[in-house]
Amino acid sequence: MLSKAVVKYIKSLQVKKYRNQHQAFVVEGAKSVLELLRADFQLEYLFVTEDFYAAHARQLDQGFPFEIVTEAELVRAGSYASNNAALAVARMRQLPPLAVQPEELVLALDDIRDPGNMGTIIRIADWYGIRTVVCSEACADFYNPKVIAATMGSFTRVNVYFKDLANWLQQLGPDYSIYGASLAGENIHTMPLEPRGIVVMGNEANGIRPEVAQQVNRLLKIPAYGQAESLNVATATAIIIDNFRRSA
Amino acid sequence: MLSKAVVKYIKSLQVKKYRNQHQAFVVEGAKSVLELLRADFQLEYLFVTEDFYAAHARQLDQGFPFEIVTEAELVRAGSYASNNAALAVARMRQLPPLAVQPEELVLALDDIRDPGNMGTIIRIADWYGIRTVVCSEACADFYNPKVIAATMGSFTRVNVYFKDLANWLQQLGPDYSIYGASLAGENIHTMPLEPRGIVVMGNEANGIRPEVAQQVNRLLKIPAYGQAESLNVATATAIIIDNFRRSA
Repeated sequence: MLSKAVVKYIKSLQVKKYRNQHQAFVVEGAKSVLELLRADFQLEYLFVTEDFYAAHARQLDQGFPFEIVTEAELVRAGSYASNNAALAVARMRQLPPLAVQPEELVLALDDIRDPGNMGTIIRIADWYGIRTVVCSEACADFYNPKVIAATMGSFTRVNVYFKDLANWLQQLGPDYSIYGASLAGENIHTMPLEPRGIVVMGNEANGIRPEVAQQVNRLLKIPAYGQAESLNVATATAIIIDNFRRSA
Repeated sequence: MLSKAVVKYIKSLQVKKYRNQHQAFVVEGAKSVLELLRADFQLEYLFVTEDFYAAHARQLDQGFPFEIVTEAELVRAGSYASNNAALAVARMRQLPPLAVQPEELVLALDDIRDPGNMGTIIRIADWYGIRTVVCSEACADFYNPKVIAATMGSFTRVNVYFKDLANWLQQLGPDYSIYGASLAGENIHTMPLEPRGIVVMGNEANGIRPEVAQQVNRLLKIPAYGQAESLNVATATAIIIDNFRRSA
Protein backbone atom coordinates (compact mmCIF):
# COMPACT_ATOMS: atom_id res chain seq x y z
CA MET A 1 0.00 0.00 0.00
CA LEU A 2 1.30 3.40 -1.02
CA SER A 3 1.39 5.78 1.95
CA LYS A 4 0.24 9.36 1.63
CA ALA A 5 3.76 10.61 2.25
CA VAL A 6 5.20 8.46 -0.54
CA VAL A 7 2.45 9.51 -2.97
CA LYS A 8 3.19 13.13 -2.13
CA TYR A 9 6.91 12.55 -2.70
CA ILE A 10 6.31 10.85 -6.06
CA LYS A 11 3.95 13.66 -7.11
CA SER A 12 6.59 16.26 -6.20
CA LEU A 13 8.96 14.60 -8.70
CA GLN A 14 6.70 15.77 -11.54
CA VAL A 15 8.41 19.13 -10.99
CA LYS A 16 12.00 19.71 -12.13
CA LYS A 17 12.90 21.74 -9.03
CA TYR A 18 12.02 18.85 -6.73
CA ARG A 19 13.64 16.28 -9.00
CA ASN A 20 16.88 18.23 -8.76
CA GLN A 21 16.51 18.76 -5.03
CA HIS A 22 16.00 15.03 -4.39
CA GLN A 23 18.19 13.86 -7.31
CA ALA A 24 15.46 11.38 -8.15
CA PHE A 25 12.90 10.73 -10.90
CA VAL A 26 9.88 8.56 -11.66
CA VAL A 27 9.67 5.71 -14.17
CA GLU A 28 6.25 4.31 -15.11
CA GLY A 29 4.89 1.45 -17.19
CA ALA A 30 6.02 -2.11 -17.92
CA LYS A 31 8.55 -1.50 -20.69
CA SER A 32 10.29 1.44 -18.99
CA VAL A 33 10.47 -0.19 -15.56
CA LEU A 34 11.84 -3.45 -17.00
CA GLU A 35 14.56 -1.51 -18.84
CA LEU A 36 15.30 0.41 -15.63
CA LEU A 37 15.73 -2.84 -13.67
CA ARG A 38 18.19 -4.12 -16.27
CA ALA A 39 20.29 -0.93 -16.06
CA ASP A 40 22.60 0.38 -13.36
CA PHE A 41 20.30 2.88 -11.66
CA GLN A 42 19.87 2.96 -7.89
CA LEU A 43 16.25 2.63 -6.86
CA GLU A 44 14.37 4.32 -4.03
CA TYR A 45 11.00 2.67 -4.53
CA LEU A 46 9.54 -0.05 -6.70
CA PHE A 47 5.78 -0.66 -6.82
CA VAL A 48 4.31 -3.40 -8.97
CA THR A 49 0.87 -4.90 -9.56
CA GLU A 50 0.19 -8.58 -8.90
CA ASP A 51 -0.09 -9.21 -12.64
CA PHE A 52 3.28 -7.59 -13.32
CA TYR A 53 4.84 -9.59 -10.50
CA ALA A 54 3.35 -12.81 -11.85
CA ALA A 55 4.85 -12.12 -15.27
CA HIS A 56 8.32 -11.13 -14.00
CA ALA A 57 8.68 -12.94 -10.67
CA ARG A 58 12.11 -14.36 -11.37
CA GLN A 59 13.61 -11.01 -12.29
CA LEU A 60 11.86 -9.19 -9.44
CA ASP A 61 12.70 -11.69 -6.71
CA GLN A 62 16.39 -11.28 -7.38
CA GLY A 63 16.42 -7.50 -7.31
CA PHE A 64 15.43 -4.43 -5.37
CA PRO A 65 12.77 -4.92 -2.64
CA PHE A 66 9.39 -4.13 -4.15
CA GLU A 67 5.87 -3.75 -2.89
CA ILE A 68 2.71 -5.07 -4.52
CA VAL A 69 0.04 -2.42 -5.01
CA THR A 70 -3.13 -2.01 -7.06
CA GLU A 71 -3.48 -0.45 -10.48
CA ALA A 72 -5.56 2.33 -8.88
CA GLU A 73 -2.69 3.15 -6.52
CA LEU A 74 -0.19 3.37 -9.41
CA VAL A 75 -2.48 5.71 -11.29
CA ARG A 76 -3.02 7.86 -8.19
CA ALA A 77 0.71 8.25 -7.60
CA GLY A 78 1.89 8.53 -11.20
CA SER A 79 1.25 10.65 -14.26
CA TYR A 80 -0.30 7.98 -16.49
CA ALA A 81 -4.04 7.68 -17.06
CA SER A 82 -3.60 3.92 -16.77
CA ASN A 83 -0.77 1.75 -15.46
CA ASN A 84 -1.41 -1.91 -14.80
CA ALA A 85 2.27 -2.74 -14.38
CA ALA A 86 4.80 -0.83 -12.30
CA LEU A 87 6.20 2.48 -11.06
CA ALA A 88 9.70 3.10 -9.74
CA VAL A 89 11.57 6.00 -8.22
CA ALA A 90 15.22 5.99 -9.29
CA ARG A 91 18.23 8.09 -8.36
CA MET A 92 19.69 10.31 -11.06
CA ARG A 93 22.90 8.88 -12.39
CA GLN A 94 26.26 10.60 -12.44
CA LEU A 95 27.33 10.77 -16.08
CA PRO A 96 30.94 10.38 -17.13
CA PRO A 97 32.50 13.75 -18.06
CA LEU A 98 31.43 14.84 -21.54
CA ALA A 99 34.16 13.95 -24.02
CA VAL A 100 33.54 13.43 -27.73
CA GLN A 101 35.94 11.57 -29.96
CA PRO A 102 36.47 12.87 -33.51
CA GLU A 103 35.38 9.51 -34.96
CA GLU A 104 32.11 9.52 -33.01
CA LEU A 105 28.65 10.63 -34.23
CA VAL A 106 26.95 12.84 -31.64
CA LEU A 107 23.60 14.64 -31.56
CA ALA A 108 23.23 18.19 -30.28
CA LEU A 109 19.75 19.57 -29.53
CA ASP A 110 19.18 23.32 -29.54
CA ASP A 111 16.07 24.25 -27.52
CA ILE A 112 13.93 21.19 -28.27
CA ARG A 113 11.04 22.09 -25.99
CA ASP A 114 8.49 19.33 -26.50
CA PRO A 115 9.06 16.39 -24.11
CA GLY A 116 7.63 13.93 -26.65
CA ASN A 117 10.11 15.09 -29.28
CA MET A 118 13.01 14.93 -26.79
CA GLY A 119 12.14 11.39 -25.76
CA THR A 120 11.58 10.22 -29.33
CA ILE A 121 14.96 11.67 -30.38
CA ILE A 122 16.71 9.84 -27.52
CA ARG A 123 15.05 6.61 -28.69
CA ILE A 124 16.27 7.29 -32.26
CA ALA A 125 19.80 7.98 -30.96
CA ASP A 126 19.75 4.63 -29.16
CA TRP A 127 18.51 2.81 -32.29
CA TYR A 128 21.39 4.23 -34.30
CA GLY A 129 24.03 3.58 -31.64
CA ILE A 130 24.59 7.23 -30.66
CA ARG A 131 25.80 7.25 -27.06
CA THR A 132 25.95 10.97 -26.43
CA VAL A 133 23.32 13.69 -26.83
CA VAL A 134 24.26 17.27 -25.89
CA CYS A 135 21.33 19.60 -25.16
CA SER A 136 21.06 23.35 -24.75
CA GLU A 137 19.87 24.37 -21.32
CA ALA A 138 16.39 25.33 -22.57
CA CYS A 139 15.62 21.84 -23.89
CA ALA A 140 12.94 19.78 -22.14
CA ASP A 141 14.34 18.19 -18.97
CA PHE A 142 15.70 14.67 -19.49
CA TYR A 143 14.02 13.47 -16.28
CA ASN A 144 10.60 14.89 -17.18
CA PRO A 145 8.25 11.86 -16.96
CA LYS A 146 6.99 12.50 -20.51
CA VAL A 147 10.56 12.47 -21.84
CA ILE A 148 11.35 9.26 -19.96
CA ALA A 149 8.15 7.64 -21.26
CA ALA A 150 8.77 8.66 -24.88
CA THR A 151 12.28 7.13 -24.85
CA MET A 152 10.69 3.65 -24.44
CA GLY A 153 13.56 2.55 -22.21
CA SER A 154 16.36 4.23 -24.16
CA PHE A 155 16.88 6.67 -21.27
CA THR A 156 18.96 3.90 -19.68
CA ARG A 157 21.46 3.73 -22.55
CA VAL A 158 21.99 7.25 -23.92
CA ASN A 159 24.05 9.83 -22.00
CA VAL A 160 22.25 13.18 -22.20
CA TYR A 161 24.19 16.31 -21.19
CA PHE A 162 22.92 19.88 -20.73
CA LYS A 163 25.38 22.60 -21.73
CA ASP A 164 25.75 26.12 -23.06
CA LEU A 165 25.62 24.68 -26.57
CA ALA A 166 27.23 27.53 -28.56
CA ASN A 167 30.10 27.63 -26.12
CA TRP A 168 30.57 23.86 -26.08
CA LEU A 169 30.60 23.65 -29.88
CA GLN A 170 33.07 26.52 -30.10
CA GLN A 171 35.49 24.76 -27.80
CA LEU A 172 35.46 21.52 -29.81
CA GLY A 173 38.08 22.77 -32.20
CA PRO A 174 38.68 22.27 -35.90
CA ASP A 175 38.82 18.46 -35.92
CA TYR A 176 35.05 18.23 -35.63
CA SER A 177 32.52 18.54 -38.41
CA ILE A 178 29.46 20.35 -37.07
CA TYR A 179 26.36 19.74 -39.21
CA GLY A 180 23.14 21.71 -39.10
CA ALA A 181 19.94 21.48 -41.12
CA SER A 182 19.17 24.46 -43.34
CA LEU A 183 17.09 25.13 -46.45
CA ALA A 184 20.31 26.42 -48.00
CA GLY A 185 22.16 23.22 -47.15
CA GLU A 186 23.51 20.46 -49.35
CA ASN A 187 21.19 17.62 -50.34
CA ILE A 188 21.77 14.87 -47.79
CA HIS A 189 21.02 12.21 -50.42
CA THR A 190 23.94 13.21 -52.60
CA MET A 191 26.53 14.87 -50.35
CA PRO A 192 29.37 12.71 -49.06
CA LEU A 193 28.79 11.90 -45.39
CA GLU A 194 30.95 10.21 -42.84
CA PRO A 195 29.30 8.98 -39.64
CA ARG A 196 31.32 11.25 -37.36
CA GLY A 197 30.95 14.72 -35.99
CA ILE A 198 28.10 16.63 -34.39
CA VAL A 199 24.60 16.89 -35.86
CA VAL A 200 22.73 19.93 -34.50
CA MET A 201 18.91 19.89 -34.54
CA GLY A 202 17.05 23.14 -33.82
CA ASN A 203 13.93 24.28 -32.04
CA GLU A 204 10.51 23.08 -33.29
CA ALA A 205 9.39 26.56 -34.39
CA ASN A 206 12.54 28.62 -34.76
CA GLY A 207 15.27 26.21 -35.83
CA ILE A 208 18.87 26.62 -34.69
CA ARG A 209 19.62 29.85 -32.75
CA PRO A 210 22.04 32.25 -34.49
CA GLU A 211 24.79 31.85 -31.89
CA VAL A 212 24.68 28.08 -32.36
CA ALA A 213 24.33 28.33 -36.16
CA GLN A 214 27.60 30.30 -36.17
CA GLN A 215 29.38 27.18 -34.96
CA VAL A 216 27.93 24.98 -37.71
CA ASN A 217 30.41 24.37 -40.50
CA ARG A 218 28.40 22.11 -42.80
CA LEU A 219 24.80 22.76 -43.81
CA LEU A 220 22.59 19.94 -45.00
CA LYS A 221 18.97 19.52 -46.01
CA ILE A 222 16.52 16.68 -46.49
CA PRO A 223 15.24 17.07 -50.05
CA ALA A 224 11.49 17.65 -50.44
CA TYR A 225 9.55 15.83 -53.17
CA GLY A 226 6.15 17.28 -52.33
CA GLN A 227 4.69 20.39 -50.78
CA ALA A 228 4.83 19.95 -47.01
CA GLU A 229 6.68 22.95 -45.59
CA SER A 230 8.58 21.05 -42.94
CA LEU A 231 8.99 17.80 -41.08
CA ASN A 232 8.63 17.23 -37.34
CA VAL A 233 12.05 17.60 -35.68
CA ALA A 234 12.15 14.01 -34.42
CA THR A 235 11.25 12.75 -37.90
CA ALA A 236 13.98 14.92 -39.44
CA THR A 237 16.51 13.69 -36.87
CA ALA A 238 15.75 10.08 -37.75
CA ILE A 239 16.12 10.67 -41.49
CA ILE A 240 19.40 12.58 -41.09
CA ILE A 241 20.99 10.03 -38.76
CA ASP A 242 19.86 7.20 -41.05
CA ASN A 243 21.64 8.93 -43.95
CA PHE A 244 24.84 9.22 -41.90
CA ARG A 245 24.73 5.57 -40.92
CA ARG A 246 23.99 4.23 -44.38
CA SER A 247 26.90 6.21 -45.81
CA ALA A 248 29.37 4.41 -43.58
CA MET B 1 -20.13 35.96 -31.98
CA LEU B 2 -20.49 32.19 -32.00
CA SER B 3 -24.06 31.13 -31.30
CA LYS B 4 -24.85 28.27 -28.94
CA ALA B 5 -26.25 26.24 -31.82
CA VAL B 6 -23.06 26.64 -33.88
CA VAL B 7 -20.84 25.77 -30.91
CA LYS B 8 -22.95 22.67 -30.36
CA TYR B 9 -22.64 21.71 -34.03
CA ILE B 10 -18.86 22.21 -34.01
CA LYS B 11 -18.56 20.17 -30.82
CA SER B 12 -20.58 17.36 -32.38
CA LEU B 13 -17.97 17.12 -35.14
CA GLN B 14 -15.45 15.84 -32.57
CA VAL B 15 -17.29 12.53 -33.00
CA LYS B 16 -16.84 10.41 -36.13
CA LYS B 17 -20.50 9.45 -36.29
CA TYR B 18 -21.59 13.10 -36.53
CA ARG B 19 -18.79 13.99 -38.93
CA ASN B 20 -20.03 11.28 -41.26
CA GLN B 21 -23.67 12.26 -40.77
CA HIS B 22 -22.93 15.92 -41.63
CA GLN B 23 -20.08 15.17 -44.07
CA ALA B 24 -18.14 17.95 -42.37
CA PHE B 25 -15.05 18.40 -40.16
CA VAL B 26 -13.26 21.01 -38.08
CA VAL B 27 -9.92 22.67 -38.86
CA GLU B 28 -8.19 24.71 -36.13
CA GLY B 29 -5.15 26.94 -35.85
CA ALA B 30 -3.38 29.40 -38.14
CA LYS B 31 -1.28 27.04 -40.25
CA SER B 32 -4.05 24.48 -40.87
CA VAL B 33 -6.73 27.06 -41.67
CA LEU B 34 -4.45 28.94 -44.08
CA GLU B 35 -3.70 25.70 -45.92
CA LEU B 36 -7.41 24.90 -45.97
CA LEU B 37 -8.20 28.30 -47.55
CA ARG B 38 -5.63 27.67 -50.27
CA ALA B 39 -7.12 24.26 -51.10
CA ASP B 40 -10.36 23.31 -52.85
CA PHE B 41 -12.53 22.50 -49.85
CA GLN B 42 -16.01 23.93 -49.47
CA LEU B 43 -16.47 25.79 -46.20
CA GLU B 44 -19.47 25.95 -43.90
CA TYR B 45 -18.06 28.33 -41.30
CA LEU B 46 -14.95 30.42 -40.85
CA PHE B 47 -14.21 32.17 -37.56
CA VAL B 48 -11.09 34.28 -37.11
CA THR B 49 -9.67 36.53 -34.42
CA GLU B 50 -8.95 40.20 -35.08
CA ASP B 51 -5.22 39.51 -34.99
CA PHE B 52 -5.51 36.73 -37.56
CA TYR B 53 -7.66 38.95 -39.76
CA ALA B 54 -5.11 41.78 -39.50
CA ALA B 55 -2.33 39.46 -40.60
CA HIS B 56 -4.24 37.88 -43.51
CA ALA B 57 -6.78 40.54 -44.54
CA ARG B 58 -6.05 40.41 -48.24
CA GLN B 59 -6.48 36.64 -48.44
CA LEU B 60 -9.57 36.64 -46.22
CA ASP B 61 -11.37 39.53 -47.91
CA GLN B 62 -11.32 37.72 -51.23
CA GLY B 63 -12.65 34.44 -49.91
CA PHE B 64 -15.39 32.76 -47.94
CA PRO B 65 -17.45 35.05 -45.66
CA PHE B 66 -15.93 34.94 -42.19
CA GLU B 67 -16.83 36.22 -38.79
CA ILE B 68 -14.51 37.85 -36.27
CA VAL B 69 -14.64 36.25 -32.83
CA THR B 70 -12.50 36.22 -29.69
CA GLU B 71 -9.80 33.75 -28.76
CA ALA B 72 -12.00 32.60 -25.86
CA GLU B 73 -14.82 31.77 -28.29
CA LEU B 74 -12.48 29.72 -30.50
CA VAL B 75 -11.25 27.76 -27.52
CA ARG B 76 -14.81 27.17 -26.29
CA ALA B 77 -15.90 25.80 -29.68
CA GLY B 78 -12.77 23.88 -30.64
CA SER B 79 -10.57 21.14 -29.24
CA TYR B 80 -7.39 23.19 -28.70
CA ALA B 81 -6.34 24.51 -25.29
CA SER B 82 -5.39 27.76 -27.02
CA ASN B 83 -6.22 29.15 -30.46
CA ASN B 84 -5.52 32.82 -31.16
CA ALA B 85 -6.04 32.45 -34.91
CA ALA B 86 -8.91 30.69 -36.63
CA LEU B 87 -11.35 27.77 -36.79
CA ALA B 88 -13.18 26.53 -39.86
CA VAL B 89 -15.81 23.91 -40.61
CA ALA B 90 -15.21 22.34 -44.01
CA ARG B 91 -17.13 19.84 -46.11
CA MET B 92 -15.54 16.44 -46.66
CA ARG B 93 -14.16 16.14 -50.16
CA GLN B 94 -15.07 13.49 -52.70
CA LEU B 95 -11.85 11.69 -53.56
CA PRO B 96 -11.13 10.45 -57.07
CA PRO B 97 -11.57 6.66 -57.33
CA LEU B 98 -8.56 4.82 -55.89
CA ALA B 99 -6.26 3.82 -58.72
CA VAL B 100 -2.55 3.13 -58.28
CA GLN B 101 -0.11 3.16 -61.16
CA PRO B 102 2.71 0.58 -61.14
CA GLU B 103 5.31 3.39 -61.28
CA GLU B 104 3.87 5.16 -58.23
CA LEU B 105 5.01 4.92 -54.60
CA VAL B 106 2.04 4.46 -52.26
CA LEU B 107 1.74 4.04 -48.49
CA ALA B 108 -0.62 1.51 -46.91
CA LEU B 109 -1.37 1.75 -43.18
CA ASP B 110 -2.57 -1.32 -41.33
CA ASP B 111 -4.42 -0.38 -38.12
CA ILE B 112 -2.45 2.74 -37.18
CA ARG B 113 -4.55 3.72 -34.19
CA ASP B 114 -2.85 6.82 -32.78
CA PRO B 115 -4.18 10.03 -34.38
CA GLY B 116 -0.81 11.76 -33.88
CA ASN B 117 0.97 8.96 -35.74
CA MET B 118 -1.63 9.03 -38.55
CA GLY B 119 -1.29 12.77 -39.00
CA THR B 120 2.51 12.72 -38.86
CA ILE B 121 2.60 9.95 -41.47
CA ILE B 122 0.35 11.96 -43.81
CA ARG B 123 2.74 14.93 -43.39
CA ILE B 124 5.69 12.66 -44.23
CA ALA B 125 3.84 11.34 -47.31
CA ASP B 126 3.29 14.93 -48.46
CA TRP B 127 6.98 15.82 -47.90
CA TYR B 128 8.05 12.89 -50.07
CA GLY B 129 5.49 13.51 -52.80
CA ILE B 130 3.29 10.52 -52.05
CA ARG B 131 -0.23 11.36 -53.21
CA THR B 132 -2.08 8.28 -52.06
CA VAL B 133 -2.33 6.64 -48.64
CA VAL B 134 -4.52 3.54 -48.27
CA CYS B 135 -5.65 2.75 -44.71
CA SER B 136 -7.27 -0.29 -43.15
CA GLU B 137 -10.69 0.44 -41.73
CA ALA B 138 -9.45 0.32 -38.11
CA CYS B 139 -6.97 3.16 -38.60
CA ALA B 140 -7.61 6.49 -36.84
CA ASP B 141 -10.19 8.53 -38.77
CA PHE B 142 -8.67 10.95 -41.27
CA TYR B 143 -11.06 13.71 -40.19
CA ASN B 144 -10.32 13.29 -36.46
CA PRO B 145 -9.25 16.81 -35.34
CA LYS B 146 -5.99 15.39 -33.88
CA VAL B 147 -5.13 13.75 -37.20
CA ILE B 148 -5.91 16.96 -39.11
CA ALA B 149 -3.78 18.99 -36.67
CA ALA B 150 -0.80 16.60 -36.84
CA THR B 151 -0.72 16.78 -40.65
CA MET B 152 0.25 20.48 -40.39
CA GLY B 153 -1.79 21.28 -43.51
CA SER B 154 -0.84 18.19 -45.51
CA PHE B 155 -4.45 16.90 -45.17
CA THR B 156 -5.23 19.18 -48.13
CA ARG B 157 -2.76 17.46 -50.47
CA VAL B 158 -2.73 13.75 -49.71
CA ASN B 159 -5.63 11.49 -50.74
CA VAL B 160 -6.37 9.09 -47.89
CA TYR B 161 -8.58 6.07 -48.60
CA PHE B 162 -10.07 3.55 -46.17
CA LYS B 163 -10.31 0.00 -47.49
CA ASP B 164 -10.32 -3.67 -46.59
CA LEU B 165 -6.53 -3.62 -46.91
CA ALA B 166 -5.83 -7.34 -47.39
CA ASN B 167 -8.47 -7.52 -50.08
CA TRP B 168 -7.28 -4.38 -51.84
CA LEU B 169 -3.65 -5.57 -51.89
CA GLN B 170 -4.71 -8.98 -53.17
CA GLN B 171 -6.52 -7.43 -56.12
CA LEU B 172 -3.54 -5.31 -57.18
CA GLY B 173 -2.04 -8.13 -59.16
CA PRO B 174 1.53 -9.22 -59.85
CA ASP B 175 2.83 -5.93 -61.32
CA TYR B 176 3.05 -4.36 -57.89
CA SER B 177 5.83 -4.77 -55.35
CA ILE B 178 4.31 -4.84 -51.87
CA TYR B 179 6.86 -4.04 -49.16
CA GLY B 180 6.46 -4.64 -45.45
CA ALA B 181 8.79 -4.07 -42.52
CA SER B 182 9.95 -7.20 -40.70
CA LEU B 183 12.85 -8.20 -38.47
CA ALA B 184 13.50 -10.95 -41.00
CA GLY B 185 13.58 -8.47 -43.87
CA GLU B 186 16.42 -7.32 -46.09
CA ASN B 187 18.56 -4.40 -44.91
CA ILE B 188 17.03 -1.31 -46.46
CA HIS B 189 20.47 0.33 -46.68
CA THR B 190 21.86 -2.28 -49.02
CA MET B 191 18.90 -3.82 -50.88
CA PRO B 192 18.11 -2.43 -54.31
CA LEU B 193 15.01 -0.23 -54.11
CA GLU B 194 12.95 1.44 -56.77
CA PRO B 195 10.55 4.20 -55.71
CA ARG B 196 7.43 2.36 -56.84
CA GLY B 197 5.02 -0.06 -55.26
CA ILE B 198 3.19 -0.21 -51.95
CA VAL B 199 4.88 0.21 -48.56
CA VAL B 200 2.80 -1.34 -45.76
CA MET B 201 3.29 -0.03 -42.21
CA GLY B 202 1.73 -1.98 -39.33
CA ASN B 203 0.03 -1.28 -36.04
CA GLU B 204 1.99 0.44 -33.25
CA ALA B 205 1.98 -2.60 -30.95
CA ASN B 206 1.28 -5.59 -33.17
CA GLY B 207 2.76 -4.76 -36.56
CA ILE B 208 1.16 -5.94 -39.78
CA ARG B 209 -1.82 -8.31 -39.38
CA PRO B 210 -1.29 -11.84 -40.76
CA GLU B 211 -3.89 -11.49 -43.53
CA VAL B 212 -2.16 -8.33 -44.75
CA ALA B 213 1.34 -9.78 -44.29
CA GLN B 214 0.30 -12.61 -46.64
CA GLN B 215 0.04 -10.05 -49.42
CA VAL B 216 3.52 -8.61 -48.81
CA ASN B 217 6.04 -9.91 -51.31
CA ARG B 218 9.19 -8.08 -50.18
CA LEU B 219 10.32 -7.80 -46.57
CA LEU B 220 12.63 -5.01 -45.49
CA LYS B 221 14.12 -3.79 -42.23
CA ILE B 222 15.81 -0.66 -40.94
CA PRO B 223 19.15 -1.83 -39.55
CA ALA B 224 19.75 -1.20 -35.84
CA TYR B 225 23.12 0.06 -34.64
CA GLY B 226 22.25 0.26 -30.94
CA GLN B 227 19.92 -1.43 -28.49
CA ALA B 228 16.53 0.25 -28.84
CA GLU B 229 13.98 -2.50 -29.50
CA SER B 230 11.93 -0.54 -31.99
CA LEU B 231 11.20 2.82 -33.57
CA ASN B 232 7.95 4.75 -33.49
CA VAL B 233 5.88 3.86 -36.58
CA ALA B 234 5.91 7.42 -37.96
CA THR B 235 9.69 7.57 -37.52
CA ALA B 236 10.08 4.23 -39.26
CA THR B 237 7.82 5.34 -42.12
CA ALA B 238 9.94 8.45 -42.67
CA ILE B 239 13.19 6.47 -42.76
CA ILE B 240 11.81 3.86 -45.14
CA ILE B 241 10.31 6.38 -47.57
CA ASP B 242 13.52 8.42 -47.49
CA ASN B 243 15.45 5.29 -48.49
CA PHE B 244 13.08 4.68 -51.41
CA ARG B 245 13.40 8.27 -52.63
CA ARG B 246 17.17 8.44 -52.33
CA SER B 247 17.53 5.24 -54.32
CA ALA B 248 15.77 6.79 -57.33
